[in-house]
Amino acid sequence: MTQPTNPIKPTSKISLPSNFTPKTFIKLPPLTLPAKPKTTLSFKTHCSPPSDNSQTLVSILHAIPDWADHVKERGMRQKRTLYDHEKWVQHRSSLRHWRHVMSSLSSRVVLSLVPPVIAFTSFAAIIAGYNYAVSVQWLPGFFPVLKASTLPYQLTAPALALLLVFRTEASYSRFEEGRKAWTKVIAGTNDLARQVIGGVESSGKNAPLKKALLQYIMAFPVALKCHLTYDSDIRQDLQSFLEVDDLAIVLNSKHRPRCIIEFISQSLQLLKLEESRKNMLESKISCFHEGIGVCEQLMGIPIPLSYTRLTSRFLVLWHLTLPIILWDDCHWIVIPATFISAASLFCIEEVGVLIEEPFPMLALDELCKQVYSNIQEAIATDKIIQAQLAAKLRSHSKEHSPNGRPNS
Amino acid sequence: MTQPTNPIKPTSKISLPSNFTPKTFIKLPPLTLPAKPKTTLSFKTHCSPPSDNSQTLVSILHAIPDWADHVKERGMRQKRTLYDHEKWVQHRSSLRHWRHVMSSLSSRVVLSLVPPVIAFTSFAAIIAGYNYAVSVQWLPGFFPVLKASTLPYQLTAPALALLLVFRTEASYSRFEEGRKAWTKVIAGTNDLARQVIGGVESSGKNAPLKKALLQYIMAFPVALKCHLTYDSDIRQDLQSFLEVDDLAIVLNSKHRPRCIIEFISQSLQLLKLEESRKNMLESKISCFHEGIGVCEQLMGIPIPLSYTRLTSRFLVLWHLTLPIILWDDCHWIVIPATFISAASLFCIEEVGVLIEEPFPMLALDELCKQVYSNIQEAIATDKIIQAQLAAKLRSHSKEHSPNGRPNS
Amino acid sequence: MTQPTNPIKPTSKISLPSNFTPKTFIKLPPLTLPAKPKTTLSFKTHCSPPSDNSQTLVSILHAIPDWADHVKERGMRQKRTLYDHEKWVQHRSSLRHWRHVMSSLSSRVVLSLVPPVIAFTSFAAIIAGYNYAVSVQWLPGFFPVLKASTLPYQLTAPALALLLVFRTEASYSRFEEGRKAWTKVIAGTNDLARQVIGGVESSGKNAPLKKALLQYIMAFPVALKCHLTYDSDIRQDLQSFLEVDDLAIVLNSKHRPRCIIEFISQSLQLLKLEESRKNMLESKISCFHEGIGVCEQLMGIPIPLSYTRLTSRFLVLWHLTLPIILWDDCHWIVIPATFISAASLFCIEEVGVLIEEPFPMLALDELCKQVYSNIQEAIATDKIIQAQLAAKLRSHSKEHSPNGRPNS
Amino acid sequence: MTQPTNPIKPTSKISLPSNFTPKTFIKLPPLTLPAKPKTTLSFKTHCSPPSDNSQTLVSILHAIPDWADHVKERGMRQKRTLYDHEKWVQHRSSLRHWRHVMSSLSSRVVLSLVPPVIAFTSFAAIIAGYNYAVSVQWLPGFFPVLKASTLPYQLTAPALALLLVFRTEASYSRFEEGRKAWTKVIAGTNDLARQVIGGVESSGKNAPLKKALLQYIMAFPVALKCHLTYDSDIRQDLQSFLEVDDLAIVLNSKHRPRCIIEFISQSLQLLKLEESRKNMLESKISCFHEGIGVCEQLMGIPIPLSYTRLTSRFLVLWHLTLPIILWDDCHWIVIPATFISAASLFCIEEVGVLIEEPFPMLALDELCKQVYSNIQEAIATDKIIQAQLAAKLRSHSKEHSPNGRPNS
Amino acid sequence: MTQPTNPIKPTSKISLPSNFTPKTFIKLPPLTLPAKPKTTLSFKTHCSPPSDNSQTLVSILHAIPDWADHVKERGMRQKRTLYDHEKWVQHRSSLRHWRHVMSSLSSRVVLSLVPPVIAFTSFAAIIAGYNYAVSVQWLPGFFPVLKASTLPYQLTAPALALLLVFRTEASYSRFEEGRKAWTKVIAGTNDLARQVIGGVESSGKNAPLKKALLQYIMAFPVALKCHLTYDSDIRQDLQSFLEVDDLAIVLNSKHRPRCIIEFISQSLQLLKLEESRKNMLESKISCFHEGIGVCEQLMGIPIPLSYTRLTSRFLVLWHLTLPIILWDDCHWIVIPATFISAASLFCIEEVGVLIEEPFPMLALDELCKQVYSNIQEAIATDKIIQAQLAAKLRSHSKEHSPNGRPNS
Repeated sequence: MTQPTNPIKPTSKISLPSNFTPKTFIKLPPLTLPAKPKTTLSFKTHCSPPSDNSQTLVSILHAIPDWADHVKERGMRQKRTLYDHEKWVQHRSSLRHWRHVMSSLSSRVVLSLVPPVIAFTSFAAIIAGYNYAVSVQWLPGFFPVLKASTLPYQLTAPALALLLVFRTEASYSRFEEGRKAWTKVIAGTNDLARQVIGGVESSGKNAPLKKALLQYIMAFPVALKCHLTYDSDIRQDLQSFLEVDDLAIVLNSKHRPRCIIEFISQSLQLLKLEESRKNMLESKISCFHEGIGVCEQLMGIPIPLSYTRLTSRFLVLWHLTLPIILWDDCHWIVIPATFISAASLFCIEEVGVLIEEPFPMLALDELCKQVYSNIQEAIATDKIIQAQLAAKLRSHSKEHSPNGRPNS
Repeated sequence: MTQPTNPIKPTSKISLPSNFTPKTFIKLPPLTLPAKPKTTLSFKTHCSPPSDNSQTLVSILHAIPDWADHVKERGMRQKRTLYDHEKWVQHRSSLRHWRHVMSSLSSRVVLSLVPPVIAFTSFAAIIAGYNYAVSVQWLPGFFPVLKASTLPYQLTAPALALLLVFRTEASYSRFEEGRKAWTKVIAGTNDLARQVIGGVESSGKNAPLKKALLQYIMAFPVALKCHLTYDSDIRQDLQSFLEVDDLAIVLNSKHRPRCIIEFISQSLQLLKLEESRKNMLESKISCFHEGIGVCEQLMGIPIPLSYTRLTSRFLVLWHLTLPIILWDDCHWIVIPATFISAASLFCIEEVGVLIEEPFPMLALDELCKQVYSNIQEAIATDKIIQAQLAAKLRSHSKEHSPNGRPNS
Repeated sequence: MTQPTNPIKPTSKISLPSNFTPKTFIKLPPLTLPAKPKTTLSFKTHCSPPSDNSQTLVSILHAIPDWADHVKERGMRQKRTLYDHEKWVQHRSSLRHWRHVMSSLSSRVVLSLVPPVIAFTSFAAIIAGYNYAVSVQWLPGFFPVLKASTLPYQLTAPALALLLVFRTEASYSRFEEGRKAWTKVIAGTNDLARQVIGGVESSGKNAPLKKALLQYIMAFPVALKCHLTYDSDIRQDLQSFLEVDDLAIVLNSKHRPRCIIEFISQSLQLLKLEESRKNMLESKISCFHEGIGVCEQLMGIPIPLSYTRLTSRFLVLWHLTLPIILWDDCHWIVIPATFISAASLFCIEEVGVLIEEPFPMLALDELCKQVYSNIQEAIATDKIIQAQLAAKLRSHSKEHSPNGRPNS
Repeated sequence: MTQPTNPIKPTSKISLPSNFTPKTFIKLPPLTLPAKPKTTLSFKTHCSPPSDNSQTLVSILHAIPDWADHVKERGMRQKRTLYDHEKWVQHRSSLRHWRHVMSSLSSRVVLSLVPPVIAFTSFAAIIAGYNYAVSVQWLPGFFPVLKASTLPYQLTAPALALLLVFRTEASYSRFEEGRKAWTKVIAGTNDLARQVIGGVESSGKNAPLKKALLQYIMAFPVALKCHLTYDSDIRQDLQSFLEVDDLAIVLNSKHRPRCIIEFISQSLQLLKLEESRKNMLESKISCFHEGIGVCEQLMGIPIPLSYTRLTSRFLVLWHLTLPIILWDDCHWIVIPATFISAASLFCIEEVGVLIEEPFPMLALDELCKQVYSNIQEAIATDKIIQAQLAAKLRSHSKEHSPNGRPNS
Repeated sequence: MTQPTNPIKPTSKISLPSNFTPKTFIKLPPLTLPAKPKTTLSFKTHCSPPSDNSQTLVSILHAIPDWADHVKERGMRQKRTLYDHEKWVQHRSSLRHWRHVMSSLSSRVVLSLVPPVIAFTSFAAIIAGYNYAVSVQWLPGFFPVLKASTLPYQLTAPALALLLVFRTEASYSRFEEGRKAWTKVIAGTNDLARQVIGGVESSGKNAPLKKALLQYIMAFPVALKCHLTYDSDIRQDLQSFLEVDDLAIVLNSKHRPRCIIEFISQSLQLLKLEESRKNMLESKISCFHEGIGVCEQLMGIPIPLSYTRLTSRFLVLWHLTLPIILWDDCHWIVIPATFISAASLFCIEEVGVLIEEPFPMLALDELCKQVYSNIQEAIATDKIIQAQLAAKLRSHSKEHSPNGRPNS
């Protein structure tokens, strides 16, 4: 919400395959996603045998998906912002449809659809071309027109639609689970901080521990955030919360959020408090462990791959045969029809895959900042409120006659 | 959420196709939602260059959505009321369909559909006009009739329907989450008040604190309500609950509900009570933190934007091509058909967007009032009940012979 | 919920097209639901101006929906019964379909469908008559046959079906929420009673309080039931549970269930028990507050009205145009076709609306009775069990040699 | 729920009206399921007039549903078994489809479909015969062919499908609720037993109570099972758990599971334990109350009957008109078509009704056996483990130098 | 779950139509899944009577499903891995569709579809062949062409699709339940370990118990994993966690996870700690019992078999009649059409069945490893953090002047 970082870079850099030849029917090469450039290279050297031509073709064909992935991953790392009242007004404005359509071409989701949509549209064009060639007898008579009844498609269309939308729903419920886990972590952090601020006196032996403890508590959501997001600079993020020697210990540990929990837990042990209050504070920490647990497992365990693959394969099979099915009805219009169908259905699938890992979608940075400012404010107002209440008590013991009711 | 940063960035950077096509009647300009009149003006001076004509056109075209948004937002700020038995009888009366249809024209939802429905119906009219012109050969022969097979639409219709309705469901489950969070806050407030009323003696040192504490407890849901709703006058709302100096502190804080929690928490610390009872009271406050957390995150984190945009774009794409699809079947009837389809489907989407932020939809004002009157009554009956029970105990110690069973 | 404000606003402001078209047979007047006969009369005197004829027509037209509502509301007040094994056997008997069909004509749901179904069937008949008149040229040639392509309907049918069924689902999940809230209240009541019976000795100072406390505990679900259902006679229901002076206090309070909670809470305070046990008992009361909260909000906050209205309007729009859509395919059969479609789809909507307020649907009376008899039995068996266990302990201390294993 | 009144009497007594003439196509007689014989008789005297013939016909017509219900209810009482690894392997074997099809004819669900499917198929045959007779002019010319457009059916088919499947889902979620309630009861039983075994010393005054307490704990799930299932012999089941005099008390009580809870609760009171530990044990019992509550309400409150009836009526209406709709398309094939449609759709409904009451579907017997053997084993291993740990402590105090790390 | 009772009953009782019809090519024999080779052999000797030819045919026909099951079960036993950032990048890469399609032929799911898909495609081929033979009059004229109207299929297609997808959803929600149960077990393990590490001093009498206790805690998830997965070598897995004599006791017990809980529980009893802290630790163990409960019941209680069988039978019935339905529209194309339909729909069903038992799908091994390394690290950092905090306290008592705020 605070500093809007530059959003989407000009996409004009995209190198596009200028010579997409019409005759390659499918001949798609063994494509894999290079997780890192290094592995890409090694892969290329691996499958070099065939020939230099195919080699070039592979890299050309790789260009589009690589670019799409690059755009997408860059987008994933953008900071999200929390909504406020103004954003909600804008969100439900009648012009939103206009905005959404206008922003289509710069949308990550739409851009990452480019590879499959291009592929299936081209395939439809090829089929249409072939069928046209056959029907105007440019090809020998034994070439059949590729066409088929639409009925089987009408019967399985509801199943495909349901599958797609349910998978998207399953992703969305993971998103919700992530959101709720963070809601609990944030509420737990605030509550623990409040109890420490209000329940531990600021003078005497507890004072330095109290200060340190609050630092650890504020650091916890930040450490969890860094643990969950990709390419995060945890040293940078934590150095404003922790002192140098604490930071060193945290950075050395393998699991930073748990390490900070250790700090909190140990500090609580050292505080001079009654046992029952100490137990209450400790029990809050269990929430943190649960929060870590939920987040890590959302991260570690995706929707069953067989489900994801089923959806993907069903979609591909459907769109590969769609031009054949539509030929009788649509002739050349199979090309735009396939385009629209692929754009719509792959888009649903894409959204489902995008929100399957919820953490890059959540405004974790802002949440952490809110926690920080909330706790800072709580520390600040603590004294004022104490003074206020003490004054009230004193004035009462002088007056002795309150009317016992709020002045409503 | 605290300091409203400047809301919508000038979208004038969007290069608009100023010469889109000579025949499009609508020529939609770079529309943005002016959150406040001021920004609208500044925006207009921004993009003045083009020409005065287009300028006028833009403001004309802006007029409808601006009006629709204005009506909608005014409606959002209306107070909701809680249902009671009479309303339920009316709610399920057989005449409800009649009432709903009659109130259509004054309905916020329907009014805010005016801009997109007008747009798509006009577009359908244009397509129909063009097609008619071609078919009666008013246009040169090389203009094609815009028509296409309906099959692809029949195949993707279930997906669109599912997507729309599932998104609405997702919004509805946010509404439910908001409702349940408030149920918990209200129940927690009542319960905490009961424990304070019943568990803290009204005389002696605790008396002034008890009075203040009950004020804070009653103030908490009000502060949370003001925190969550737009344009709320928190001073007005809180002044009947809090004393002047307390109110000043609360209003100065950035996060008012948390500040009131601080007050409650500190007052509890000062009460002379047994440790275990104090802990029980404190643990109630954790519920309040959770309530704030859930509400703030419902507010801060909408349904993933990619999902929302997907639905919106799918709808727009669908309705832009619908007249072409329907031409063969419907001819001039494409216009009412597009109208009905757009009205129905955009209405589902609109409802989904409206209930996505649940708080303006909930009768929070009435809930707060109920809490207030409940606590007031509990204070009032407290003494009566105590007297009644004491009388019972006394009479028993005289009689000594109850039959030990309820007189059923 | 406490003071019933005047329910239905005069809808006489709705300017009604009194001369809508000369041919419409139905000419629906400004209908409102009279919550009570009195208001109906006052309403009639209100809108008397028009004319006597229309006045009569209005009352005729009102007759059917009024009757339907009357039947429905009477049905709502019937006591539900809890299912037992016999009912389940009957419930899944193969003859159930027969029973359900046979009972159609006496079913509340079916009867309350009469008004809309009659209306839409009549409308279909009018359209069919008009179309027939045009087609056999009874009308001048410039009257068009009202017919249209079915395609737009095929495309939006899934959306309508989904919307309807999802709304019904949303109502059903409210029903489930109500059921679960009551499950918790009942379980909490039983558990609290058990703890009081087992944990508070029946002799000594606690005895009269124990007796009173159990009365209050048994009275709580009854008071909550009366609070939630319409037209309940709380004095009648509670007088077998509470003594006269307690009852007077409860009836005087605005919120009876909370008042009884106050009684329970105060009695617990007066009991001579260890602090930790007292706290355990008190914490049970929080469940009651939560139960009240959930029930009140289910009652106070319906499914967002925009959602409900959307469904209703969609249905009406659909059925008004259905005869036009079907004319080409069905001719005179549009009338039964519209009848069946309206009966089916409005029935789904009706069921959704009926179960939206779950409390009249739940067998709350029987649940309260069960609680009563359970607690009575627990009081009765308490002594027997204590004696049994004491005997066991004594016999053991004599024998000294149990085999330490259950005799399985 | 408490005292099983005489269940379903042979329904062959049902007097059936009548002169089911071959020509009255529908005129189905008023079948009702007599809940008790008395009403049956009174009903007979009511409609006795008709004749003896019809009487016989009625009993013939009743024969099939009676047989189907008999088979079904016998099946309901079969014991279910818990799945283990072998069963899972078999469950997902590729041959499962073969197995399922082969077992169709012996399947309870399929058999209980026989009555409605036969009825609707016969009805389709009658319609087809009539239509054929008309079309070949065996009947006078004024008899119309019964046929209609299919469009209305295509439009409402999704609504019917959704309704059916959502109702099945609602039943399934009740099944899940029942399963989860039992999971909690079983886990609570195990946990309570563990705490008693581990936390109460086996010698001294507590010894006989400990033994009795464990018996009660093991008896609780058995008593709950018997309470929830039909025709269970609770004396038989409990006698291996409880001693004779305890058993007598339990059997005399109206609500056996609660009576056993009383036993547990009273025994806990008598144990010599610290207060906090006693409270912890008591709090476990609240879980049992909740478990009873959830199970009883699942049992007592079905899915709203209006919902169930709606589905049933919709199905019947649909299948009665289906042959008319299909005549044009299918002619004589309407008969198999109706058969397949009825078999499929009624089967979905049947499954939904079957799993609506989850307890006969759950392997409660085996669960209770597991609890028993788990607790027996826990008692057995208790001593061994204690000895083992004591040995460890002793060896340590001798050695004095552990390396403090697990030997990984 | 403990003693595997004899799994599959001899299905040889199924009387098979040995002379089904002379023309059916397939003549499917009484197939059963041999859980183990032994039973297969015994089964073969059972049903040997028929003839040697059919015997051979049976084993040939068995070959494919046996091979498919073998592949599938081998796949089930593969270790799953947890996702990390790289995997997520790859997971949402635009090339995923390509990867999924390429891996189709090696996919377990696809391979296990081979038997049904082959069967139905062959059946379609037979029907097509027969129909072709009839239509070209190779067969005598009284053989009818097998064809039918498609309408009934269009009407029931949504129901089939919904049923399939909802069943898959039900399986998926079991998967989620399993995942969440493990999340809780893991979080509970970590939290209990933390409390033991932080709350029990490492020197003195508690030292050896602390060490042993941590071993037991680390062993618990491993034992639970082995309990839930097939063919796991628990001795192998546990020997790195437990000492030899403990391991022996655990392996001897019937229910290993509960045995380890006993160890933990007894060790806690022996620790010298305050009562309230001991209770807090004990209450964690209840989570473990719940975890075991949820996992065992997910394992023991599948989705109601009637539901599963309904889906399977519906699918089979649908695909057996599909070629007849499609003949008019598709002629020879029924064969690929049936192939695609069977592949798609059986695939959805297969995925639903695969994820119904969630544990082989979850990366339990890696989760256990994570717990181990987390606890090891916690033990390691414990001392460092303690030293760090002690240093801080000391430095403070020297300096005496902190600024009381984090250095932000």
